[in-house]
Amino acid sequence: MATAPPLVGKLVYRFEEGDATQSELLGGKGSNLCEMAHLGLPVPPGFVITTQVCQSYFSSGQTLPEGLWESLRENIDLLESSLAREFGSSSNPLLVSVRSGAAVSMPGMMDTILNLGINDEIAEGLAGLMDNPRAAYDAYRRFLQIYAGVVLEVPNDVFEPILGDAKTRAQVSQDHQLSPEQLRAIIEDYKEAIRRHSGRDVPEDPWTQLKEAVEAVFRSWNTPRAIHYRDYYGISQDLGTAVTIMSMVYGNLGDTSGTGVLFTRDPSSGKKEVLGEYLPNAQGEDVVAGGRTPRPLAELATSMPQVYRQLTAMAHQLENHYRDLQDIEFTVEEGRLFLLQTRNAKRTPMAAVRAAVDMAEEGLITRQEALLRIKPDELSQLLVPKFTEDLDSAEAQNSLLARGAPASPGAASGMVCFDAAAAVAAALQGEAVILVRPETKPDDIHGITASVGVLTCRGGVTSHAAVVTRGMGIPCVVSCEEVWVDLEQGCLTANGKTVWAGEYISLDGGTGEVFHAAYKTELPELDEFEEGKTLLGWADRVKRLGVWANADTPQDATQALSLGAEGIGLCRTEHMFLDPERLPAVRQMLLNAPAAEEWRRDNLGAGVAPKDQDQLGELVRKSPVRKFYEALDQVRRFQTEDFTGILRVMGNRPVIIRLLDAPLHEFLPSQEELLAELEELRSKPGVSSGQITEKEELARLADSLREANPMLGHRGCRLGLSFPPIYQMQVEAIMTASVGLIKQGCPVQPEIMIPLIVDVEEMRRLRRDLTAVAEAVQQEAGVRVAYKFGTMIETPRAALTAGKIAEVADFFSFGTNDLTQLTFGFSRDDAEGKFLRSYIQEGILPADPFSTLDQEGVGDLIRHAVAAGREARPSLELGICGEHGGDGASVAFFHRLGLDYVSCSPYRVPAARLAAAQAALAESTETAD
Amino acid sequence: MATAPPLVGKLVYRFEEGDATQSELLGGKGSNLCEMAHLGLPVPPGFVITTQVCQSYFSSGQTLPEGLWESLRENIDLLESSLAREFGSSSNPLLVSVRSGAAVSMPGMMDTILNLGINDEIAEGLAGLMDNPRAAYDAYRRFLQIYAGVVLEVPNDVFEPILGDAKTRAQVSQDHQLSPEQLRAIIEDYKEAIRRHSGRDVPEDPWTQLKEAVEAVFRSWNTPRAIHYRDYYGISQDLGTAVTIMSMVYGNLGDTSGTGVLFTRDPSSGKKEVLGEYLPNAQGEDVVAGGRTPRPLAELATSMPQVYRQLTAMAHQLENHYRDLQDIEFTVEEGRLFLLQTRNAKRTPMAAVRAAVDMAEEGLITRQEALLRIKPDELSQLLVPKFTEDLDSAEAQNSLLARGAPASPGAASGMVCFDAAAAVAAALQGEAVILVRPETKPDDIHGITASVGVLTCRGGVTSHAAVVTRGMGIPCVVSCEEVWVDLEQGCLTANGKTVWAGEYISLDGGTGEVFHAAYKTELPELDEFEEGKTLLGWADRVKRLGVWANADTPQDATQALSLGAEGIGLCRTEHMFLDPERLPAVRQMLLNAPAAEEWRRDNLGAGVAPKDQDQLGELVRKSPVRKFYEALDQVRRFQTEDFTGILRVMGNRPVIIRLLDAPLHEFLPSQEELLAELEELRSKPGVSSGQITEKEELARLADSLREANPMLGHRGCRLGLSFPPIYQMQVEAIMTASVGLIKQGCPVQPEIMIPLIVDVEEMRRLRRDLTAVAEAVQQEAGVRVAYKFGTMIETPRAALTAGKIAEVADFFSFGTNDLTQLTFGFSRDDAEGKFLRSYIQEGILPADPFSTLDQEGVGDLIRHAVAAGREARPSLELGICGEHGGDGASVAFFHRLGLDYVSCSPYRVPAARLAAAQAALAESTETAD
Repeated sequence: MATAPPLVGKLVYRFEEGDATQSELLGGKGSNLCEMAHLGLPVPPGFVITTQVCQSYFSSGQTLPEGLWESLRENIDLLESSLAREFGSSSNPLLVSVRSGAAVSMPGMMDTILNLGINDEIAEGLAGLMDNPRAAYDAYRRFLQIYAGVVLEVPNDVFEPILGDAKTRAQVSQDHQLSPEQLRAIIEDYKEAIRRHSGRDVPEDPWTQLKEAVEAVFRSWNTPRAIHYRDYYGISQDLGTAVTIMSMVYGNLGDTSGTGVLFTRDPSSGKKEVLGEYLPNAQGEDVVAGGRTPRPLAELATSMPQVYRQLTAMAHQLENHYRDLQDIEFTVEEGRLFLLQTRNAKRTPMAAVRAAVDMAEEGLITRQEALLRIKPDELSQLLVPKFTEDLDSAEAQNSLLARGAPASPGAASGMVCFDAAAAVAAALQGEAVILVRPETKPDDIHGITASVGVLTCRGGVTSHAAVVTRGMGIPCVVSCEEVWVDLEQGCLTANGKTVWAGEYISLDGGTGEVFHAAYKTELPELDEFEEGKTLLGWADRVKRLGVWANADTPQDATQALSLGAEGIGLCRTEHMFLDPERLPAVRQMLLNAPAAEEWRRDNLGAGVAPKDQDQLGELVRKSPVRKFYEALDQVRRFQTEDFTGILRVMGNRPVIIRLLDAPLHEFLPSQEELLAELEELRSKPGVSSGQITEKEELARLADSLREANPMLGHRGCRLGLSFPPIYQMQVEAIMTASVGLIKQGCPVQPEIMIPLIVDVEEMRRLRRDLTAVAEAVQQEAGVRVAYKFGTMIETPRAALTAGKIAEVADFFSFGTNDLTQLTFGFSRDDAEGKFLRSYIQEGILPADPFSTLDQEGVGDLIRHAVAAGREARPSLELGICGEHGGDGASVAFFHRLGLDYVSCSPYRVPAARLAAAQAALAESTETAD
Repeated sequence: MATAPPLVGKLVYRFEEGDATQSELLGGKGSNLCEMAHLGLPVPPGFVITTQVCQSYFSSGQTLPEGLWESLRENIDLLESSLAREFGSSSNPLLVSVRSGAAVSMPGMMDTILNLGINDEIAEGLAGLMDNPRAAYDAYRRFLQIYAGVVLEVPNDVFEPILGDAKTRAQVSQDHQLSPEQLRAIIEDYKEAIRRHSGRDVPEDPWTQLKEAVEAVFRSWNTPRAIHYRDYYGISQDLGTAVTIMSMVYGNLGDTSGTGVLFTRDPSSGKKEVLGEYLPNAQGEDVVAGGRTPRPLAELATSMPQVYRQLTAMAHQLENHYRDLQDIEFTVEEGRLFLLQTRNAKRTPMAAVRAAVDMAEEGLITRQEALLRIKPDELSQLLVPKFTEDLDSAEAQNSLLARGAPASPGAASGMVCFDAAAAVAAALQGEAVILVRPETKPDDIHGITASVGVLTCRGGVTSHAAVVTRGMGIPCVVSCEEVWVDLEQGCLTANGKTVWAGEYISLDGGTGEVFHAAYKTELPELDEFEEGKTLLGWADRVKRLGVWANADTPQDATQALSLGAEGIGLCRTEHMFLDPERLPAVRQMLLNAPAAEEWRRDNLGAGVAPKDQDQLGELVRKSPVRKFYEALDQVRRFQTEDFTGILRVMGNRPVIIRLLDAPLHEFLPSQEELLAELEELRSKPGVSSGQITEKEELARLADSLREANPMLGHRGCRLGLSFPPIYQMQVEAIMTASVGLIKQGCPVQPEIMIPLIVDVEEMRRLRRDLTAVAEAVQQEAGVRVAYKFGTMIETPRAALTAGKIAEVADFFSFGTNDLTQLTFGFSRDDAEGKFLRSYIQEGILPADPFSTLDQEGVGDLIRHAVAAGREARPSLELGICGEHGGDGASVAFFHRLGLDYVSCSPYRVPAARLAAAQAALAESTETAD
């Protein structure tokens, strides 16, 4: 046996020597077995080879370190003496299981090898020892199959026909119905097959078996699938796996034997009741292999009441010990109970919350621990629809059509529509609709609101579709580049399949999966979920950060309030522009703004609105000018209504209203559409030349507003400065709404946000001019409003010059979406599908910076802006309103920076509340340390 | 007279009390008159009201400060006694001129009022005193006209018909041919017209005239035109103007009187010879009014040799005193010489250089002063064509078609072509062509190179058209939104005029003007311009910054070398891709890259190129994969040629080659073009379905590469990471070229630049993989190349994390164009025409951040990156390669930061050399202080 240089430290730990704190050295499985041995629980004797041995195995060119072999022999000796059996003996054989186990649970690694240490001769001996030849030969058969698979890379499907044929010949349907002789014949066939496929035999020598198995476990650490998994989840490739070697116990020795699993609480609902399954006269694999249906654990209470009492007492002990819901494997060998594994149970979000709150109320854990135990995202998942069946099943996965980026969580199932109008029409007929678009634009909004789910081919997790759906709680998958939409034909193709409009698909906005099938969905029942409310109540008492919501309508605001929002951090006025009834006026306003502004500057001077009759008389003669001011009036009216609605809902809570931000052309019909309409008009009889001229003019204007990079173009306060009447109209609407509500006895706190500032001078001029408008409205009404002016810090330059900007801003709201976009030079609309996903998969970036704030770059700018802003104006109100407001890690960062609040989609408010509490707790822990 | 609170300090300075250092207090004109009085030169007696009085006038609601009136009376008394005349006396009248004069010369301010202190009675007296009634009445007539214009706002065109009619009646053509009686009649008509237009008379009382004139001068500081001018040039609005009051002297008293101007050297060529004009028997206005042609100054030497000797001696004295080329106004009153003004003369760039160098060689100024006296931009202007005639003339301005942003300096005149192909065809016929496009794209490049000038409607001063033309020295005007191009009709319209393809236009890339006429242009003769070479030689000895050039071809590199470049700071490989002969291969490579990459990853693993026959056999069966690798080979061949050419030219100077940076779709035909071609193919008989399918596939691929914001999209190192073979091919080409040249005995210094890094991990992986390629080429050739790997710092995140990036980069080149774009969120392509120009005009931003580096925001990022980079790697080579490399103020900033070099277009290299020298000099001055 080739050996590597000696390793410092112990290579092998007996179960009695380790404990649960050593998972990095002994793996999760191994350290938990040690811990149970420590607690005096009945674990079969065994030991663990450390992860350091695995690391050494790879660093020394796949050789085992000096001393390992001796150590293994010594430990096997100890097992032999403790059990009074002998490894390699045919009369009184000791068999062992060999399992991999890293610090982090990880699929794709080697499975357990059971019954190692067996060969023809030993199998005979075992048959006698067990007084059960069938069990002995069955163990041998399974060993051969697994060993050949793991060590000799013989595929599993080599063995299945052999077993199948044998059962056919024996006219039986279940494995355990085969006779010992039949099993012996199968074993010979297995050996023959192994020889044929690998060119060698499974070694007869148990020690050789052990060595080869240990090395195979180590090698399984570095399979491509395991490497990819670790890359994907950001797990270090250097950890290595431990190997646990444990003496075999047998659940298949008759009716007083058996095997099972149990959960200390219901992992689905979180209810406090032991729940599990049990299969008499079986080994673990029988449960997995299917064929026999496990019995509810409760039946054990009647069949073996003593064992049942022991088991439930031990389960209770383990839960108390680990102070968390446990998932326990056990085996009963001829009435004697052995625990083979315990671990923290995987649970649904609802179970996680309920168990944590219950445990805190039972005094098992503290409230702080309960708060820290729930991932903020789990709370968001609680609020969205789910599929009623498990779509991880092979059958469901067969219907998998494509995979995109998960953009807005929740499950949806509906009829495919390829445009907004079709979606609206189908929804009116009562259809559940899934809108599928290459990408969505603001004028698809009515189609989106009419749909139960949205799928786009382009655009990332902060694209239009993603942001809008997340705000509305509509499940959405974006950036699904495998899907090719043919709008002309009315179909999509993905991975060779074609789906026509009117067919049904399902999508999971939490995983990004899209299925060519209609799966049922259901909304979680939350009204009676008292534990959830309790947990968030605790969170609110702990957190220091305010949690506000991004909401554009009174409906959104109401929802946000009910989910605990303390204010509106971002009300996007332009979303109000997109109502189909309003869009024509908005378009009139924007298309005629340049001409009207030219006229205004020439005739009235900067900053002056036309008021008196003479000027209006002049206006009437100038068509674009008249159209502009008429449209402006219309827009003012509906904006005043909108603001009244949202301010009324929020009452004396702050509402930050952002003035027009989007590039103008977002509100205009696309050039392709206009040209098509023009074509149609021209070919239609009876259309007047005036109609055509008008359409041509529209196309010309829309084209003149086109930009190569609209994100970096004429938007935000640049529009406000180019076309002063628009922002003035918006401020007038906000203030008119405010004074109206105050007169009705409703207190309001509007905060006016000027977007996309790059220099203090923009802010200074706009604030000056808009203050005049705000003051005039108050003066006329004879009512004072407590309003503020502030800005979004969303360009690197605004962050870099924040000290100056704070001189003329009452508040900063960090627009982390745009700030991330500009700091990286990553387009939110393009990056995801083109390169960002592979950047993350390949570990070039640790996370999607649009989901989790980049603390190093973007965070540095924010840190600077917070310090400089506060220095210039100590009362500066500071918050963030990007997508990062709902992300746990980002919220913790914002907490540490000392922001006043985070603002996120209403559906993410509970998650943000929890994340804010966790951040406060982490801080107090740090302080305490 | 209402007065404001008393002012601290003197309100009025006699000429003898001030000097040239007090221009801020006394204005430029006033302080120079003081200085001349000091020097004992014959200046008419006078005094100056300070700029503080003007400031007080505005800050106290347009009232004059206490004590001013008394001060004026005292000073007028002093004039009276020094000249023995009396202000307001009709028998022995003292008349004065009143002039505005701010610290900074500024058009748009009030003109001089001559002959103030006159009325009917005094005019009679003056006629007697002068013994020249015609002169006296003419003075009165002029006074009325100017006074009415300035004080009473009576427009000039009220008076012209009166004078014209009178001359017609008198049958004379010149003003001075009018008789005293005729002039008296005109005066009465003037008075009548003034009364009709303003409702009042010009006051008869000289003191009232004086007071009203002083206030009018003050008010002229705040005319919209003056305010706008100051905004535009960044002059403070608070300076205020001084008022100079000087006793009148008369050049119109007969043949021993006269008036003139002179330059101490030729302001056009800079040659050392006194040059000027002289008009006998005339006042200053006669020269301006035209009608009489001034005589060359030399004639004065014969007509009044004494005066001529005095004058040239004084000119010499003034040049020596001011140590600069002077522009002097003088009047001779009956043989007595008076100097009325001296100032530093406006001169052409060539004259500026020649005079500075000559003066330094004469010992008049130091070499350092000579270097500091030339604006870097003036050197750039020397290198471009100019119009042979002055297009400021009214006639030329009549042909003005539109005005855009000056993007690449120089004058051009040629036939309008609306697409690249037409431009090339016309150029082949020998036509001078001006390419007019809505905007240019990379595949217009052959059209651009074929043109003498380029005009675009969209895109700013760093748009594609601007950058390319500047690099090539082709005059260019961009962002000319007044021009509307109708490609279908083949015409442009601008301000109501239509210009068809084939007509001629002229454009001035230094002013942004476009004319509907063909004006002649000429290239400056520079071969014999020794003074220019001398100056740059001095600059090189002083400067510390290296000056490199951006050059993409051997031709560019040769030009850059001849203009003094010390290296190539940016060689854009993609510009080599755009040759029409190469573009097909480039397109094949890019279109098939995604499919080929998928195949490669599946079959070969990341980072492995297909080498052996088996793999190539497989390749052949997979069409996109085969196409990709075939195209890659073609591109490799021509890239190797290109690099060989450019490296050979530069020899042992560094050449930084940037790997592919542009978004992929820049190389692809536009969607509109493809759809049109498809339409045509489908309607054509005899086209195979294969051809159509191929075109459809091309359209589909091009569409899949489309991005909403390409500047923030899939470009730079993101391409390098997505499609590793492309960068590998480029590095192979660079290294193959390098080893080839070294083998030929030509030393080379290639530096490989990886663009658009946002995180060190991108740089680390690419450097690792590309180093392997570079090493392999050297190994195979058995030759070592001294090459470097570095990156462009062009995203805010790269700047923020520069310390980490420096760990794996040998050099940083700051890409200030992109860095500015991202820091501001201003699209280079869109911002200029949409809002940036008005931002600058209105003073929201002090300068175009794409022309002059924004030191506050972008500069802060660079400062940080330089410090962090140098700390991490002291040997880090630091430079900049954005458009700012040729801008004086920016170069000074880069000098202060301690960069190693700046890199700019070849044509701007001389300017950068000078700017670098000036920066070094400024620093040593600071150190000395």
